[in-house]
Amino acid sequence: MTVSPLTAAALAERFSLGLHGDGAVAVDGVATLARAGRNQLAFLANSRYRSQLAESAAGIVVLREADAEAAPGTALIARDPYTAFAKIAALFEHRPARPPGIHPSAVIDPTAQVSPGAHIGPFACIGARAEIGDGCIIGPHCVIGDDCVVGAGSELIARVTLVVRVRLGQRVLIHPGAVLGADGFGLAMDAGHWIKVPQQGGVVVGDDCEIGANTTIDRGALDDTVLEEDVRLDNQIQIGHNVRIGAHTAMAGCSAAAGSARIGRYCLIGGAAGVLGHLEICDRVVITAMSLVTSSIHEPGEYSSGTPLTDNRTWRKNAARFKQLDALARRVLAADKE
Amino acid sequence: MTVSPLTAAALAERFSLGLHGDGAVAVDGVATLARAGRNQLAFLANSRYRSQLAESAAGIVVLREADAEAAPGTALIARDPYTAFAKIAALFEHRPARPPGIHPSAVIDPTAQVSPGAHIGPFACIGARAEIGDGCIIGPHCVIGDDCVVGAGSELIARVTLVVRVRLGQRVLIHPGAVLGADGFGLAMDAGHWIKVPQQGGVVVGDDCEIGANTTIDRGALDDTVLEEDVRLDNQIQIGHNVRIGAHTAMAGCSAAAGSARIGRYCLIGGAAGVLGHLEICDRVVITAMSLVTSSIHEPGEYSSGTPLTDNRTWRKNAARFKQLDALARRVLAADKE
Amino acid sequence: MTVSPLTAAALAERFSLGLHGDGAVAVDGVATLARAGRNQLAFLANSRYRSQLAESAAGIVVLREADAEAAPGTALIARDPYTAFAKIAALFEHRPARPPGIHPSAVIDPTAQVSPGAHIGPFACIGARAEIGDGCIIGPHCVIGDDCVVGAGSELIARVTLVVRVRLGQRVLIHPGAVLGADGFGLAMDAGHWIKVPQQGGVVVGDDCEIGANTTIDRGALDDTVLEEDVRLDNQIQIGHNVRIGAHTAMAGCSAAAGSARIGRYCLIGGAAGVLGHLEICDRVVITAMSLVTSSIHEPGEYSSGTPLTDNRTWRKNAARFKQLDALARRVLAADKE
Repeated sequence: MTVSPLTAAALAERFSLGLHGDGAVAVDGVATLARAGRNQLAFLANSRYRSQLAESAAGIVVLREADAEAAPGTALIARDPYTAFAKIAALFEHRPARPPGIHPSAVIDPTAQVSPGAHIGPFACIGARAEIGDGCIIGPHCVIGDDCVVGAGSELIARVTLVVRVRLGQRVLIHPGAVLGADGFGLAMDAGHWIKVPQQGGVVVGDDCEIGANTTIDRGALDDTVLEEDVRLDNQIQIGHNVRIGAHTAMAGCSAAAGSARIGRYCLIGGAAGVLGHLEICDRVVITAMSLVTSSIHEPGEYSSGTPLTDNRTWRKNAARFKQLDALARRVLAADKE
Repeated sequence: MTVSPLTAAALAERFSLGLHGDGAVAVDGVATLARAGRNQLAFLANSRYRSQLAESAAGIVVLREADAEAAPGTALIARDPYTAFAKIAALFEHRPARPPGIHPSAVIDPTAQVSPGAHIGPFACIGARAEIGDGCIIGPHCVIGDDCVVGAGSELIARVTLVVRVRLGQRVLIHPGAVLGADGFGLAMDAGHWIKVPQQGGVVVGDDCEIGANTTIDRGALDDTVLEEDVRLDNQIQIGHNVRIGAHTAMAGCSAAAGSARIGRYCLIGGAAGVLGHLEICDRVVITAMSLVTSSIHEPGEYSSGTPLTDNRTWRKNAARFKQLDALARRVLAADKE
Repeated sequence: MTVSPLTAAALAERFSLGLHGDGAVAVDGVATLARAGRNQLAFLANSRYRSQLAESAAGIVVLREADAEAAPGTALIARDPYTAFAKIAALFEHRPARPPGIHPSAVIDPTAQVSPGAHIGPFACIGARAEIGDGCIIGPHCVIGDDCVVGAGSELIARVTLVVRVRLGQRVLIHPGAVLGADGFGLAMDAGHWIKVPQQGGVVVGDDCEIGANTTIDRGALDDTVLEEDVRLDNQIQIGHNVRIGAHTAMAGCSAAAGSARIGRYCLIGGAAGVLGHLEICDRVVITAMSLVTSSIHEPGEYSSGTPLTDNRTWRKNAARFKQLDALARRVLAADKE
């Protein structure tokens, strides 16, 4: 949140980076290699784009040792330039002030506990027995239901709904439109009509989780739906009731996990990928985009389903043959035996 | 909504269940077999988990006749233990009081008709000629547009939007973030630019329907989009304009039906499954998760598309061959002829 | 927005259509062929449904020259009847008045500039340095964040969130629940924990774009996420950071484009289709529903992936063989060589 320029030497010391060139060069912001000016810092994470270095006007470039030679000016040397860049960029990020205090339009239940260090925005609603911790930012139009807890330092950008019994850890960040703690999809058939199975669990979200815009996380049926610490969910993700997601797992946009699925730690779930209910996925599993996990996974590694994209005419021919695949296989195997 | 304990004998009588063991045992809540204590009731719906009975401390267990022997204590015998459990759990469900009345912050058009028996929460907006029936709960931040009707006993949890000409039956339940009655996606190309086709229909939702968080149901172009009674939609479902969904059909999270599709009664549409526009699906069809319905279905039964998940290396090899499938099939058939 | 009836002759002149039959016939609304009455206009775009003409009571029918003979009464002849119908229907569309002015409940930052010709609805929040142009309609519950611009004549129906640095062109239409300008999903791993990469870009939306309900468009990491003019997005679409979508492209419901993807002009992206990050798709590409684009496309045309739907039993057999596809292909090719 600083606005004063920082020198390459200061950045090198602060983040334990190597310095190459003039340490007195100062920058006050970040940009891409292509657009950065003299007073901005850029990064090169992939040596394939090394040729862009020569044309860049960036005052400082963060890069790997192996690319340092190609830097025309001042460079900071990092083992992981992207991570170093992220840390430096955070120094220059402009974040609007959200001072502590409660907007006069907010509607707060008398039994709720709001820390005097929290910011409560316009039109926020805070329910019975809810607790809002120190340093929290509850943006405009957020609805915090009964018995919800928002841990210290958490930020709900705007228009976030915590329905009931949602307990957020510390420094949780939630983007607009997200809904946590809605009824799980629990139904039983009774004489030709559906009846609802009461959803009396809650949602527990660990420290440092991030939850994307319009993502939905249902509360548990009997026990809780759980995100362990540092889980990162992109936009429009659907998490069913009683799902458990291990620490440091990241899920990309539009992916989903059905009821009671258990996903391990350090997993990466690709965009629009799905995990069926009641499955278990071990730690360090990668699921590629739009794949469907239909049985438990016990070995770390990368997994996929689906077929490749082709022009529609070719696809139609091949797809038609998919319907005959078993018959074709039988013929091949029979021919082999002969 | 009762809080006083109920005995096994009382529950047996109330729901016409068999009683096994001590009818005087009383419970005041429900839980899983693993977590239930002496004063809680649990259920066993799947005999595969029968071994959990011995370790459970549950005061009462609801189960099938066939599993009754294995129950260590008091048991209630049901033909469908899950359905019986759902009914019993509802007795113990704690639902917050939402007394009739209009929150002073709500903005209500003078031409709207709000029943004196309805609850209108903070920051609700109710449009021209809208009607809110007896016993309705319109939660905080709901927007009820012009010419919308909310039938008696319906509940819009929070932040639900009915855009225009949405008519809900009785006892409809809608979760936060749902949007009903937005413009259908109707476009015509005119000299290289899109022009909008006015969407002058509405949305009609039958009695006892449930609509999940962040689900969207567009209004019809000329006629209405229709959900018959007791349709159950999970979260993040997209229903295009002029779709018709038959009574008692349930759709799981992230599924979608494109414009003018007609889905029958008692269908089950799996998570992230899709139905193309202008198709017809007959009654009692099951579509498995992430399948795509590309032509009409006239026979009840279960339908699927997609490929199985494998490790990425194996998948890459097989997926590459999918591109050659027609050519391979031709070779096999030619060889067969020889 | 007129309510007085219009004659066939007047419509023919206004939209340069051919007239067939009695030009004095007047209508005051539109409907389907099946439901239209004497004072309504209907259309026939597909000659396949020509038989419906005889049974229709419509006062006027818009159709192709080739179908004119079959029209029982007055007909308007158009090269593209659907486009002509769209234009005529717009004349009869009832749109509620949203007069200029600011609802007293709205919360507007003193540094924001709101045109006196704009309508600001109940509970709207408008942030620092935001600009709202002439003739804009900002519906109830919209949140316009800091440094956002809403171009003249744009309409945000209700409950739309522009998080920060979102710049809309003129006549942009956004449906409820849409979130523009949330953080892109930028993460770097640092010693076993994720750290956020600041998202300091914005979102730029061209003139005449339409954005569907609950659609999300993240802001760029360093540069902007861009929709060129006349882009049409249906509901529940996810657009990652730094994506660029070319003019006149339309995307159907639940489709998605991952970070830094570039989609050309006049493309049609089918429902639930996906485009991986950092790819390029040229102009005039059609992607069919639920297909996944995994590499750049350089030729206009139609593209697909996926497998056809069959009954589940058949599908299981064929899907199992997909796992053996490479092995089967090797056998076939080996047998061929023999």
